Amino acid sequence: MLQKRACDLTVEDLAAYLRQSDFGKYLDEDLLARFAEKSFAVDYRRRRFIYSANDPADSLYVIARGRVKLCRVEDLTGREAVIDILSAGSLFGESALYAAEPKREKCAVAYESARLLKIPVGDFKKGMAENRELYDYTFRLIGQRLARAERLVADFALDAISARLEKLLLEFSKRYGVPETDGVLIDISLPHREIASIIGSTRESITVRLNAMRRDGIIDFVNRKILIKRPESLATA
Amino acid sequence: MLQKRACDLTVEDLAAYLRQSDFGKYLDEDLLARFAEKSFAVDYRRRRFIYSANDPADSLYVIARGRVKLCRVEDLTGREAVIDILSAGSLFGESALYAAEPKREKCAVAYESARLLKIPVGDFKKGMAENRELYDYTFRLIGQRLARAERLVADFALDAISARLEKLLLEFSKRYGVPETDGVLIDISLPHREIASIIGSTRESITVRLNAMRRDGIIDFVNRKILIKRPESLATA
Repeated sequence: MLQKRACDLTVEDLAAYLRQSDFGKYLDEDLLARFAEKSFAVDYRRRRFIYSANDPADSLYVIARGRVKLCRVEDLTGREAVIDILSAGSLFGESALYAAEPKREKCAVAYESARLLKIPVGDFKKGMAENRELYDYTFRLIGQRLARAERLVADFALDAISARLEKLLLEFSKRYGVPETDGVLIDISLPHREIASIIGSTRESITVRLNAMRRDGIIDFVNRKILIKRPESLATA
Repeated sequence: MLQKRACDLTVEDLAAYLRQSDFGKYLDEDLLARFAEKSFAVDYRRRRFIYSANDPADSLYVIARGRVKLCRVEDLTGREAVIDILSAGSLFGESALYAAEPKREKCAVAYESARLLKIPVGDFKKGMAENRELYDYTFRLIGQRLARAERLVADFALDAISARLEKLLLEFSKRYGVPETDGVLIDISLPHREIASIIGSTRESITVRLNAMRRDGIIDFVNRKILIKRPESLATA
């Protein structure tokens, strides 16, 4: 079995997860209760696929805990391009709302062990139709993901690997950063191979560059995580 | 003056342009008349900027005729990353609807001499609030642009220049292709420097590769446009 249904959760538990999520504040109590009734929770261990390319796009997901990686995997080689890594509270699988074909293009993988709430796309669409605030939230979310993806496209076209690496560290220090006495700790496990899959490089090349940045006193490694010691030395994104 | 207002157009002319646009069929007559009253037409000569990064994001645009290039320009070097080239009928500037700050991130440039209808964002938002079909259209449009941008990100991360070039030719032959006896003509002027700005390469490298593809009988040049003679030889996108 690739996934485990979290059977012991009550509708109240599900409602609590929804309330804490990024879009919880846009749901009125009625819609929240309905989503809790229609959704179910699934637990995934690290590295398990939540969906793959060509799977039916029939649900949206809320991350109750853990992190989820969105990526594309090249058929023949298995090489991976990471589009994003999302944290607890995030909504994903929203392509089910607009995809030309009702199929996934990307993959979603548990980046850490994760608990997800799965909401059928029909119920979500109904919720959007009835609740303008939910529609507006989803619209802005997709728009902001578009703005980010367009920035990434431009960065790929214009920047060398080193500048892309610096921009990634800056972005992740803003999104996942925890202040420490001597810098900002990026509080997410980032193996060099994952960084390579995000910026389109190789693991070896990333290792060389990160080690050089450590020698220059720009970053350090703390418990296998990256500490940004001198953010001002990184490329301005 | 960078732009010329097309003063001789009547509200009926504007309404006709709107009716022919991609989203015209989602507007009821009342909304169409209102948009025609609130919008105005501007003519741009080739290469003129419609807006630049940091300009206020206060309007949406409909392309009445011509084509518009969306791009990012690197401050110091002036190097350009092309995000997309849109044809008559398209809506753009939609980031005004969701941007975190009311400013442009990208640039829009007249790729050919173009006539645009400019609709103030406030009126467009009001239209979306009153007309669910317009909201749904805009939602799907942004979602499909997101899906395309995410594909481009993955292509940049995974593909070498040659595969990106082949995918671009395939995409453009689908979007701008005109069937000819010996293939599909991409009916848009594509200087090698523009192709380089789309796929993140150099003009010299594009010229070398396109000449090689011509020698191999995959493409040909016809009136400075590209004819795809053997689409099956191009990378499957």
